[in-house]
Amino acid sequence: MAGAGRFFEDFVVGDVIRHATPRTVTEGDIALYQALYGGRFVVQSSAAFARALGYPRGPVDDLVTFHVVFGKTVPDVSLNAFANLGYASGRFLKAVYPGDTLSSTSEVIGVRPTSKGDAGVVWVRTRGWLDNGELALDYVRWVLVKVQGGRPMPETVVPALPEAVDPADLGSACPIIDRSAWDDALSGSVRRFDDYEIGEKIDHVDGMTVEEAEHQLATRLWQNTARVHFDGYAQKSSKIGRRLVYGGHVISLARGLTFNGLENAFHIAGINGGRHVAPIFAGDTLYAWSEIVDKQPLPGRDDVGALRVRITGLKDCAPTDFPRKLEDGKDHPNVVLDLDLWLLLPR
Amino acid sequence: MAGAGRFFEDFVVGDVIRHATPRTVTEGDIALYQALYGGRFVVQSSAAFARALGYPRGPVDDLVTFHVVFGKTVPDVSLNAFANLGYASGRFLKAVYPGDTLSSTSEVIGVRPTSKGDAGVVWVRTRGWLDNGELALDYVRWVLVKVQGGRPMPETVVPALPEAVDPADLGSACPIIDRSAWDDALSGSVRRFDDYEIGEKIDHVDGMTVEEAEHQLATRLWQNTARVHFDGYAQKSSKIGRRLVYGGHVISLARGLTFNGLENAFHIAGINGGRHVAPIFAGDTLYAWSEIVDKQPLPGRDDVGALRVRITGLKDCAPTDFPRKLEDGKDHPNVVLDLDLWLLLPR
Amino acid sequence: MAGAGRFFEDFVVGDVIRHATPRTVTEGDIALYQALYGGRFVVQSSAAFARALGYPRGPVDDLVTFHVVFGKTVPDVSLNAFANLGYASGRFLKAVYPGDTLSSTSEVIGVRPTSKGDAGVVWVRTRGWLDNGELALDYVRWVLVKVQGGRPMPETVVPALPEAVDPADLGSACPIIDRSAWDDALSGSVRRFDDYEIGEKIDHVDGMTVEEAEHQLATRLWQNTARVHFDGYAQKSSKIGRRLVYGGHVISLARGLTFNGLENAFHIAGINGGRHVAPIFAGDTLYAWSEIVDKQPLPGRDDVGALRVRITGLKDCAPTDFPRKLEDGKDHPNVVLDLDLWLLLPR
Repeated sequence: MAGAGRFFEDFVVGDVIRHATPRTVTEGDIALYQALYGGRFVVQSSAAFARALGYPRGPVDDLVTFHVVFGKTVPDVSLNAFANLGYASGRFLKAVYPGDTLSSTSEVIGVRPTSKGDAGVVWVRTRGWLDNGELALDYVRWVLVKVQGGRPMPETVVPALPEAVDPADLGSACPIIDRSAWDDALSGSVRRFDDYEIGEKIDHVDGMTVEEAEHQLATRLWQNTARVHFDGYAQKSSKIGRRLVYGGHVISLARGLTFNGLENAFHIAGINGGRHVAPIFAGDTLYAWSEIVDKQPLPGRDDVGALRVRITGLKDCAPTDFPRKLEDGKDHPNVVLDLDLWLLLPR
Repeated sequence: MAGAGRFFEDFVVGDVIRHATPRTVTEGDIALYQALYGGRFVVQSSAAFARALGYPRGPVDDLVTFHVVFGKTVPDVSLNAFANLGYASGRFLKAVYPGDTLSSTSEVIGVRPTSKGDAGVVWVRTRGWLDNGELALDYVRWVLVKVQGGRPMPETVVPALPEAVDPADLGSACPIIDRSAWDDALSGSVRRFDDYEIGEKIDHVDGMTVEEAEHQLATRLWQNTARVHFDGYAQKSSKIGRRLVYGGHVISLARGLTFNGLENAFHIAGINGGRHVAPIFAGDTLYAWSEIVDKQPLPGRDDVGALRVRITGLKDCAPTDFPRKLEDGKDHPNVVLDLDLWLLLPR
Repeated sequence: MAGAGRFFEDFVVGDVIRHATPRTVTEGDIALYQALYGGRFVVQSSAAFARALGYPRGPVDDLVTFHVVFGKTVPDVSLNAFANLGYASGRFLKAVYPGDTLSSTSEVIGVRPTSKGDAGVVWVRTRGWLDNGELALDYVRWVLVKVQGGRPMPETVVPALPEAVDPADLGSACPIIDRSAWDDALSGSVRRFDDYEIGEKIDHVDGMTVEEAEHQLATRLWQNTARVHFDGYAQKSSKIGRRLVYGGHVISLARGLTFNGLENAFHIAGINGGRHVAPIFAGDTLYAWSEIVDKQPLPGRDDVGALRVRITGLKDCAPTDFPRKLEDGKDHPNVVLDLDLWLLLPR
């Protein structure tokens, strides 16, 4: 049946899936991204500022690239998924501009049946390609996929994943920038790479309430077809009882919130890890706080440096006390997102 | 009074109405169409794919053209309409690209007072024009319009309408495509024109819940000014008690859903007929199924063929049993849309 | 703390604040403006019509310029504001086109502590700049800002503001137009500058219901960061108990509604004054009526003339009786907006 998707047994380690549908990114995506997430990072907001730094034109937000590449994988990878378990080893390799066309492939790099036998974990390395054949994005994600049954189960293969992306592998999506053209009044803060300290925690202050129409618009924009986000009628008779918000929507909202305190972190260079700790629903209000967990120069570059930032997304809970875990080590009940990124800032 | 609209007695057979307001289609419309309806048909999604086939650039979705042309007619044709009764004899004649400006005219081709005398059916042939004077779209629609009263009623004229558009009149909006450039992995299916059979029924699987904000955004985008879609305060005291969703919104949602099973049906070439069987409201979930009712080659072309597809839209009812009519011949209570199109697929 | 904003004591008369973040306007903004407000003014809808008049390309709506310029001021001017009190002395000085980048500065031109001492009125003259250094927009706004306390209060300075913008200062954002190219059928009305009379009142007929998702999308699009518009969780414990709609959203909705009756008023040239009389919330339906309070030729130009139009926005109340004030001089309870503009129309 059309649109039925793959089950756990359909995933074979080493297989590479070419996904439908390539998609051209436009200035319309820039405006919609703004309307959906309220980004204020200057390079993605002002083409004039970007050009002054050395970009040929104004690039799209890094997460536009991520969402477009991710969306294509859903019909092939996660249509029968119970959960999106995690991300790792992600690198943004090329800046993407209006007019570029993105397509995606996913290589199956691991499979592990659960002990219960009704589902299995599938690891894929997804690659996002520009139409000139260049690789724009590369990341690993793993999902819990339903077992169809009646077929032999595959041998377990668990891929080795790095704890973090090596800083030597970061930054190719960011051209060498002319630091003298960076205007702190326009970018929104005087705090640059050297002004942050490892261990520092940042309250991003603002909260953003999510509406059904918003996450549906976003999720369709990225051509993500997972039914749980759109079909309120079918969801009514599910265990959860309502539509789920696409996890990537939460990531973009959280990234938008981080502007307060990370104004100059203009580029996402790597995804060290990420986990949707709990679902979010329409009506929930998202807050975020960040911890600086590492900082590294980029080899051979003195224009920008990389901050390793762990972003915690919370629902219906201001981040004043920086909550993440409870004393017993369990996740704080309001935490919905735990995301570990490399961000680039001017030096 | 400004914005009062025409009444039944104002329509004279043979009159041609030039509608305000011409509108330039942009890449912003492409992104919004995506966000509103989640289209995945490859030619409208990827400008690179379209160019490889032989298009000069990436075209907008055919229904963008339809909605823009339709929207202009509302202030002149259907502001005082009780109902939008049907469509027929529609042909898409030119591909439309970002930067093109569309305007509309409507020729009154029929009028018939109802026996009750408080309303009458008005038939118009609406034409959508590019700013270079070329005809991009041509279709007939009929609406039930309020009688103002106190004026003589016009003589009945009922136009002859074809049961279906002649395949010889289809396809001019689709350039001759290079079939060797059609990549089934990227378009989403290996099923092409020759793989479908007359009589085949297709369950499109997915459901889409409609939100007030979504249909309002869409309906304003198309400059459709019918009050019933926007004015919740006035609608509260109407018989229906709430805002109605623009019928064209339902058409685009249904077309989006048909991707599952009709992945390669990349172009709407003709509208044989269409009927909004019942209204849809915010909170309703739309499903769709299709029946292949005919298939025809295009005269003189071996690159594409035309499938005649009858699409049934349903609310809050999965299409697993392909419901359309009850045993007594009445419409199934969940059916909201009955749409008969010619779709083009590569051979 | 990042994102904390200025308090009343932080404003010093004469200071000029350079605001983050410059923003490039695109065709995506044109489409979204259409979707959010349903504009039908022909010059902003049709690039072909605009070019025929003498514009180099299709300009964006004047209020796109206003909102983008305004949005930047929020983090610096009104994050700790209790209320946005008024606008005056506004002039649109340059037409803005897709690709232009706008940035903003605000000069503090007045401060006055309230008698209660917990807040003060701050007047700023905000200027919107194109990236070539030209001034595109210039207006005064005043807001009631929270006093932080524990610091000396500034001396009162109240700026002198004109009752209306001098017609000699209007029109530079509108190129000399070729009146012979103005097609009344396409623009939607035969009524031009000379057809309106001072004292005339116009019922704009339609109503528009506001949804949370709509005003949030709009307010993020303009990079307006005021928390009261987005944070439903925090607002629940505020005195108002819910999210407030950005006042500029109401202005754009009202301007959209004025098309019925002011179809040819294609350009906003000046803002004489404006006041948000009462807040609006999701679920409210906005109506509008207008009064022509003056009409003036533009010095040295015979292509367009300026109508001074006072627009009254109403919620949940049709404007049939043109309500504004009660007999005791107080605001009519349904009035939400009182806006006094100079609009340009062809002669």
